[in-house]
Amino acid sequence: MSGTVYGVGLGPGAQDLLSVRADRLVRGGRHVAYFRKAGRPGQARRIAEGMLRDDAIELAMEYPVTTEIPLTDPRYNDCLAAFYADCTGRLLAIAEAGADVVVLCEGDPFFYGSFMHLHSRLSGLVPVEVVPGIMGMSGAWNATGLPITWGDDVLTVAMATLPEEELVRRIRDTDALVVMKIGRHLAKLRRAVAAAGRSDEAWLVEHAAMPEQRVTRLADVDRVTPYFSILLIHGQGRRP
Amino acid sequence: MSGTVYGVGLGPGAQDLLSVRADRLVRGGRHVAYFRKAGRPGQARRIAEGMLRDDAIELAMEYPVTTEIPLTDPRYNDCLAAFYADCTGRLLAIAEAGADVVVLCEGDPFFYGSFMHLHSRLSGLVPVEVVPGIMGMSGAWNATGLPITWGDDVLTVAMATLPEEELVRRIRDTDALVVMKIGRHLAKLRRAVAAAGRSDEAWLVEHAAMPEQRVTRLADVDRVTPYFSILLIHGQGRRP
Repeated sequence: MSGTVYGVGLGPGAQDLLSVRADRLVRGGRHVAYFRKAGRPGQARRIAEGMLRDDAIELAMEYPVTTEIPLTDPRYNDCLAAFYADCTGRLLAIAEAGADVVVLCEGDPFFYGSFMHLHSRLSGLVPVEVVPGIMGMSGAWNATGLPITWGDDVLTVAMATLPEEELVRRIRDTDALVVMKIGRHLAKLRRAVAAAGRSDEAWLVEHAAMPEQRVTRLADVDRVTPYFSILLIHGQGRRP
Repeated sequence: MSGTVYGVGLGPGAQDLLSVRADRLVRGGRHVAYFRKAGRPGQARRIAEGMLRDDAIELAMEYPVTTEIPLTDPRYNDCLAAFYADCTGRLLAIAEAGADVVVLCEGDPFFYGSFMHLHSRLSGLVPVEVVPGIMGMSGAWNATGLPITWGDDVLTVAMATLPEEELVRRIRDTDALVVMKIGRHLAKLRRAVAAAGRSDEAWLVEHAAMPEQRVTRLADVDRVTPYFSILLIHGQGRRP
């Protein structure tokens, strides 16, 4: 009898924003895995701090590369493919030995998450279950205290890794906007927002739903916390 | 001392997908309010069935109109504005008397939710707090067992109430797609998806995360459950 691999969405950052289902799995998990950058605690593991069983066996899956190689370099893909294959093998070994594994995922696992790369490799080999989570972007618009979309608003979610002219076009052509994966693309993103004529509407939220939460007008931002920042433009649609 | 009005996101439908924070508020709430169509149990109230205190005082806020008057008719706006003003008054009276009120909201309150119309009216008068929830669309893509977005995918969220040519343009110009508020716009939406050349990629999810959950290829759909249906096209972005 195989164990199950659970990809568990932890939500935006606060422990009481885990779902009841996720909370139960995280607190009960004997084997607990998570991604992180080498030398860092890892965002998912940080969210779960203090929740794990005393006898939990932790498996840190450390990215071999994050921003050192450009996305366009074929070595980036090769390197990550080998890494995901290796992680898959490690989870598979635990599950095939009959134990469950809980994989901690910030936000929602099926929304731009790393777990998807394990899910597609594990499916059909052992049981895999995904627990959806509150998305980071929901934590972000909640931090601003304003709704993101009203009535018939169109919401566009785009990554700051897109080319500048593509960002400009997307920012112009939407009511509400969410941009993630900002990190070192901040200067490009700021130019794109300005070119689209929307600088006055844009907010940057860092560490949403965490103690360090910070909400700033884009115009007032000087530096940005890589990867934990989300840019928002709120929709202004129909409101009776 | 005023009580607080809590807009509590219940998530997509399953009770154990409420956040720990939401679960605590819903189970502990003495005053519990929710929107519904007259004569219906109401989706939010249905999700919370069996969770409320025995002595909970329920306040059903019944829409005076849903689809009987077209959105474009000025009477629609007037009618809803009067309704939201009335609901605001009722919640205000409870909070000003010193009691908290929990407003049950399906999905995430700040994402196309009715609670936003109360939030904007109550803010500054009494304390208002919003608890984010797992969005219905996350329940929907989770039901398909496939990630919605990979790598640099652009996700567009649009309402089926948009004009047909606008839907066609949006569906063509995105990697991943979510369409909500489908109801009686199904025929128009289906034509728009076909005109955009994406019929083979489209899925319809009804009652995500609930016992009646149903995932169907758009091509095989004959009828649709008003308002509880979400159309999805999954992104196919970079996957090492």
